[in-house]
Amino acid sequence: MSIHVNQLIEQLLISLDQTQITHSETELLNHSKDESYHAGKNPTVIVYPRSKEDVVHIMAVSSKMNIPVIPYGRGSSLEGHIIPIGDAITIDFAEMNKIIDIRAEDLLVTVQPGIGRIDLNNELRKHGLFFSVDPGADASIGGMVATNASGTTSVKYGTMRDQVRDLEVVLANGSVIHTGNLAAKSSSGYHLNGLFVGSEGTLGTFTEITLRVFGIPEFQVAARVNFETVDSAIDAVTTIRQAGIPIARVELVDAGSIEHLNAYSKTNFPMKTTLFLEFHGNEAGLAQDLEFTKEIMEDHGCSNFVVESDTKARNIIWEARHNLAYAFIHSYRDKKMMTTDVCVPISSLATAIHFARDNMDKKNIVGGIIGHVGDGNFHVSMMVNMDHTQDVKNAVEFNADLVEFGLSLGGTCTGEHGVGIGKLKYQKLEHGPAYEVMQVIKKSLDPQNLLNPGKLILVDS
Amino acid sequence: MSIHVNQLIEQLLISLDQTQITHSETELLNHSKDESYHAGKNPTVIVYPRSKEDVVHIMAVSSKMNIPVIPYGRGSSLEGHIIPIGDAITIDFAEMNKIIDIRAEDLLVTVQPGIGRIDLNNELRKHGLFFSVDPGADASIGGMVATNASGTTSVKYGTMRDQVRDLEVVLANGSVIHTGNLAAKSSSGYHLNGLFVGSEGTLGTFTEITLRVFGIPEFQVAARVNFETVDSAIDAVTTIRQAGIPIARVELVDAGSIEHLNAYSKTNFPMKTTLFLEFHGNEAGLAQDLEFTKEIMEDHGCSNFVVESDTKARNIIWEARHNLAYAFIHSYRDKKMMTTDVCVPISSLATAIHFARDNMDKKNIVGGIIGHVGDGNFHVSMMVNMDHTQDVKNAVEFNADLVEFGLSLGGTCTGEHGVGIGKLKYQKLEHGPAYEVMQVIKKSLDPQNLLNPGKLILVDS
Repeated sequence: MSIHVNQLIEQLLISLDQTQITHSETELLNHSKDESYHAGKNPTVIVYPRSKEDVVHIMAVSSKMNIPVIPYGRGSSLEGHIIPIGDAITIDFAEMNKIIDIRAEDLLVTVQPGIGRIDLNNELRKHGLFFSVDPGADASIGGMVATNASGTTSVKYGTMRDQVRDLEVVLANGSVIHTGNLAAKSSSGYHLNGLFVGSEGTLGTFTEITLRVFGIPEFQVAARVNFETVDSAIDAVTTIRQAGIPIARVELVDAGSIEHLNAYSKTNFPMKTTLFLEFHGNEAGLAQDLEFTKEIMEDHGCSNFVVESDTKARNIIWEARHNLAYAFIHSYRDKKMMTTDVCVPISSLATAIHFARDNMDKKNIVGGIIGHVGDGNFHVSMMVNMDHTQDVKNAVEFNADLVEFGLSLGGTCTGEHGVGIGKLKYQKLEHGPAYEVMQVIKKSLDPQNLLNPGKLILVDS
Repeated sequence: MSIHVNQLIEQLLISLDQTQITHSETELLNHSKDESYHAGKNPTVIVYPRSKEDVVHIMAVSSKMNIPVIPYGRGSSLEGHIIPIGDAITIDFAEMNKIIDIRAEDLLVTVQPGIGRIDLNNELRKHGLFFSVDPGADASIGGMVATNASGTTSVKYGTMRDQVRDLEVVLANGSVIHTGNLAAKSSSGYHLNGLFVGSEGTLGTFTEITLRVFGIPEFQVAARVNFETVDSAIDAVTTIRQAGIPIARVELVDAGSIEHLNAYSKTNFPMKTTLFLEFHGNEAGLAQDLEFTKEIMEDHGCSNFVVESDTKARNIIWEARHNLAYAFIHSYRDKKMMTTDVCVPISSLATAIHFARDNMDKKNIVGGIIGHVGDGNFHVSMMVNMDHTQDVKNAVEFNADLVEFGLSLGGTCTGEHGVGIGKLKYQKLEHGPAYEVMQVIKKSLDPQNLLNPGKLILVDS
């Protein structure tokens, strides 16, 4: 094994320098797992490319020595995307984290994959622009493209897939392609942007990313609203969507989770089913949207409707909401979090949430339910004692039952976290014969199965 | 040849009945060409499927007899998409034109590919909903998916690709897949929706389409604005976009085209560079958007700003705009229209339009310039005497020069019309090594090259 590593490093050193390669135990361990409950495993070596040429060389070594590559951003994935399944070269993009170009007139930005979304937004703000996708974590843009990340703002601005205009990608055969261009739309060729976004490193490795950005809206207003039942909250959101009110965020947090949220974030929100809302637009338009929204909420029996116009109060809401996962982790230090991610048609969302709550109760599962309700996407954050076999078994069964139920409603097993290792077992069930089409594409573009194998899709090799 | 046709019909009749098959000279001629200048060619036979099972059978016959299939909607394509290049079974979806399901709460509709967009909107209106993509022509939804159509409203609502949630597709090998699901977003598997939308019948044949729709906005207001120069009009639009004003349509028509538009549509618009605008939203928000837009327009030197609030006046504007192509055709009855379709980053749009105007003047090309300026997409409608060799040569050269120039600006050869036959020659130039990836995908999914061969992509066969 150590000869193997030395050989590998020798090959890598043909084009890279010593400072770009490590296999120190600490670094291997740091790169062995993500933020999920999935068991970690060390890669063989970690490399830090500084250019696309470096990545092309790494890919050539990978192919020559038949050792797979795993692109790595910030390790914030939730389904084991960056965990090796055997020998692996982890490509850490920490040193490829620059903004290459901001084209304010075109509402476009070109970045390297290692940049984090918060750093990107800090820079864009100076130009009156913002990057819309907000998954909570300060993920790398490369990782967000790889998993088609989304989050609280997708109900208005869309997912990562809706933002990507072009990717520079190093393929398994070492060729470097561009999947798109700088135009706002195109009907030319096959839509490789769509195919490569969400491909989780299994079709190629991104070295440059061009994203759509938006002008910072003139006004932003948040609101929080309480309901007696999840059903009435969801019905209210459905009505708001049908009325065409362009809501920018709409998050459901169940009553039990509010308790953890209050404790962790030192807030004092009523312990009831809660909707957190946000609106973006001009002042007069927002006033009218808010008024109309309030009417609809009241028609659906909301118990209060609190508007938060100033920036500080808005930030408290969204920080508290984003820290909810940490609030649970903080409350249950002996447990790990396992998170479901089904997304269903909004007309079935209440049904799916009831199914989840009933099954949590039956299996004595501890955790909360939070949802991007405008998209029909919700998470059950289960706190699991990983040393307790029955606890783990219950959580895994619960997840599987919920996925099957979600699929039966016309939904998907993952709305935003991606497949990775965790959702692999549901792929055939979800996609049916389309899974074979995916396998054909994977095999034709990566015949040696070198690109993040064992994630998203399984092929005979 | 006639034995060949009889054999083919015999095979088709195994599952179809006589009323679903024709090879009458009139019908063959009707299906031999689209609305473009490309020379027509008769298919071998035309079939009218009534179900996906019919399409599966047609595909089996195609494969067995090695005769390609061409899906056909309404023949309104502009790049020869439905023109056979040799023997071909044209699959006309005229009898598969039903709405299968309207899920108002989910803002979804499922249709068969043969339905026209106007019929669809007439039905959706009863539910307070509308389908957003408006290419002008009353195209079939199947054809619009196949070419990733867009049009005047895409600046706000996106292109066809942004609307498609799921496609039922019959593949070359006869298997039937679904490319998506009913959830608002998904990070599961490869994004086959994205790949199949815009594939122009070359990867599979659609039999069912699920689309996102929108609630009809509370208020709609149109405006028309005149400028002395194209540059100032485009600068104004760029500022409006950066300011985050959610404009729903913004169309540029050059001064020369307004003359034809007035003559054909009996309007009396000033013969100057004109922007036609539309806003969708609530009453107070639109008032503020309009006011802000007017300020920006005036800052950029517009000579007047006419608001049209009532539905009739709005309809006059958009009908006149949509009929502009017919206005030109009407004015030059001895000529055919050849239309360019480059889309460039908006910061380069003025440059590209100047390049076009200068080259039109140099080559004595007759025609107008109209643009979906919010997207950076514009059309030069050239009126060409197809019997006049030099006229045709000039137009073809002009088109090629404009495409090359557009590509050099980071744009695309086609923003919305698709590749078909007409843009095939630019594909390698535009996509570089990514073209090989497209070829690999095409060959792996259609090894016999049976699916609309000679369109979008060329493969060795």
